[in-house]
Amino acid sequence: MDITQAIRARRSIRKYKAGQTIPREHVELMLEAAMCAPSACNSRPWEFVVVENAELRRQITQLHPYCRSLPDAAMAIVVCGHPEALPDVTGDGFWPQDCAAATENILLQATGLGYGTCWCGVYPDQARAGALAKLLDVEAVPLSLIIVGVPNENPDRRGFLDPTRVKYLR
Amino acid sequence: MDITQAIRARRSIRKYKAGQTIPREHVELMLEAAMCAPSACNSRPWEFVVVENAELRRQITQLHPYCRSLPDAAMAIVVCGHPEALPDVTGDGFWPQDCAAATENILLQATGLGYGTCWCGVYPDQARAGALAKLLDVEAVPLSLIIVGVPNENPDRRGFLDPTRVKYLR
Repeated sequence: MDITQAIRARRSIRKYKAGQTIPREHVELMLEAAMCAPSACNSRPWEFVVVENAELRRQITQLHPYCRSLPDAAMAIVVCGHPEALPDVTGDGFWPQDCAAATENILLQATGLGYGTCWCGVYPDQARAGALAKLLDVEAVPLSLIIVGVPNENPDRRGFLDPTRVKYLR
Repeated sequence: MDITQAIRARRSIRKYKAGQTIPREHVELMLEAAMCAPSACNSRPWEFVVVENAELRRQITQLHPYCRSLPDAAMAIVVCGHPEALPDVTGDGFWPQDCAAATENILLQATGLGYGTCWCGVYPDQARAGALAKLLDVEAVPLSLIIVGVPNENPDRRGFLDPTRVKYLR
């Protein structure tokens, strides 16, 4: 799928065909896409948890309010960040932006492969992030949870160019 | 360009062919791509400043240390966020992630059109963000500055699948 088309075809999918699995080569394409994202000072402050396990997917719905479609989907990819990867930055640092770019790459790669996705926000909700880190047994901070599966709905396009959001300085 | 290829072809470009301009239809494709990014609760907390003006591009190099190639490039797109767009969120909120996803979409759309880009971090560096907001006369918070132009270098691919960053829970 063309990049121009993939960016516009990506939608948040909330209904999935149950009982589907995703071949390992497709999962690896998504993870590779994530790791092709740019990061501040090339710090690559990310790590990924691929949750295919059905019981874990069910448990995630208990601790994140917007993941109800996860049991029907094929898997979740949880993008986690390492705040300490670039220590000399003020405030929250650049790691949430780096991990968000990696998340977007996963969504677009999945769209190109014909899958549906939904980006479920985790960090900076500390309760959600802490509970998810504990369940998945990771030290890094869960920033986003991406539901991936075979879509069972086809929502209309929503993104569009809103000229009121643009200022030109010529 | 195919989405799989575009994600892998995107590199941070630091040398540009001077004196080039970008047709308005390409600029609008990049802005539309940005606004196709997902955002928390569809809050779309973004706004964009397209800086083609040569004197402003020169002045930006005075207040951001990593924009030295901007005067040779065709333009900058400054992605700005509205922290108040989604008021009920703890901590820094989701707007930096939303604006980072929009930034990544601009980089990929530009790559697909044959341009080079470089994502220069602004927020959460408050000094950089404040100075840039003042120079561009915007109320929103500058999160990233994207240099866009005709590339004059062709760096090797850098992103790759690092299996040590992945945990599978089957």
